[in-house]
Amino acid sequence: MTEPLTRGLFITLEGGEGAGKSTQARLLDDALARRGRKVLRTREPGGAPGAEQLREFLLKGDHGLSLRAEVLLHFAARLDHIERTIRPALDAGQVVICDRFFDSTLAYQGYGLAHGDPALLEFIARLIDLTGLMPNLTLLLAVPRTLARTRMQQRGGGSDRYERLDEAFHLRVADGFRRIADQAPGRIATIDAGGDVEQVQQALLTEIDRRLPA
Amino acid sequence: MTEPLTRGLFITLEGGEGAGKSTQARLLDDALARRGRKVLRTREPGGAPGAEQLREFLLKGDHGLSLRAEVLLHFAARLDHIERTIRPALDAGQVVICDRFFDSTLAYQGYGLAHGDPALLEFIARLIDLTGLMPNLTLLLAVPRTLARTRMQQRGGGSDRYERLDEAFHLRVADGFRRIADQAPGRIATIDAGGDVEQVQQALLTEIDRRLPA
Repeated sequence: MTEPLTRGLFITLEGGEGAGKSTQARLLDDALARRGRKVLRTREPGGAPGAEQLREFLLKGDHGLSLRAEVLLHFAARLDHIERTIRPALDAGQVVICDRFFDSTLAYQGYGLAHGDPALLEFIARLIDLTGLMPNLTLLLAVPRTLARTRMQQRGGGSDRYERLDEAFHLRVADGFRRIADQAPGRIATIDAGGDVEQVQQALLTEIDRRLPA
Repeated sequence: MTEPLTRGLFITLEGGEGAGKSTQARLLDDALARRGRKVLRTREPGGAPGAEQLREFLLKGDHGLSLRAEVLLHFAARLDHIERTIRPALDAGQVVICDRFFDSTLAYQGYGLAHGDPALLEFIARLIDLTGLMPNLTLLLAVPRTLARTRMQQRGGGSDRYERLDEAFHLRVADGFRRIADQAPGRIATIDAGGDVEQVQQALLTEIDRRLPA
């Protein structure tokens, strides 16, 4: 059911906590807008009024759902986000920049919480197929865990359910992202996001220019 | 992924509002318990702590989700219900009597809200396959709409989002249930539920004895 995109451009940003996704998404928005592109910047879970209500439910972390039910709930929010927000923008020829998409479900639920259980990865793959929207380009921001931890400590503030999980969990997530990128080299570009903000932004723009039509 | 049931017995009750499902489920529970069976009686949406929270979200009706996202949310609650409540009971050899299951999603969302849109029916069919639990027997309680309406008026009290929908919607749902039953004669028995409570209960027990091993 994956439909080809005839218009618009769908770019997702992925990576663990502290990789700098939000900052880079904002800068990318500005850079593409300066080039005259109409940009919609959004993020998951959420991105549409119904999906935002599900976001609260998902991130509070004590929902008690079974892991496969939690994955289905992520895809319910995702499908709402696609149908209410992303696809209309793409149909109108916009560039959509999305902070997290289905690769985060593979990494956090599939590799992080389920330790790479092949049955759960297959379950997620079937849901990706069912919801039927593939990014044109996914930028995976990779930073060493020590740096990500330092950034998270500096950021401070409220920590969500994932931030409260142990170091082994975050290492599985990082390893999961690497495996996902290895399996989809045509779609996913891994960016070294350990440098300063401007340097990383330049690397993202270079990747976009190299991979996507102007 | 539909697994064969090696133990237990999974019976679902289906039908529109005012068909008498809850009353009949309670009586069936008593009757099977008198026969020495351990019975778990449950209902959808809900039936597990996480799924019950999603029930509130689904039934309040102003969630604003797209229809396919709403369907996915029903299946998220359903999978939680299966994994936390239904499958453990079946594995322990119990009879599970469930008031509404996936046929209600087909009837209410597929036929009622989406007017039988083939793409949505196919979407639901793929989710049924993905969640992988088929009832051993489905008892469809059929009553004329005039009688169902009278019963609903007598019942009074708070009306949920479906009860507030118009008569054409409820006729589409009733017609949907008939089509679903026609397509699965081996699993679904249609029971005339217009008679008195004892008479209907007897018809249900006769159907159970005829179709299921003692």
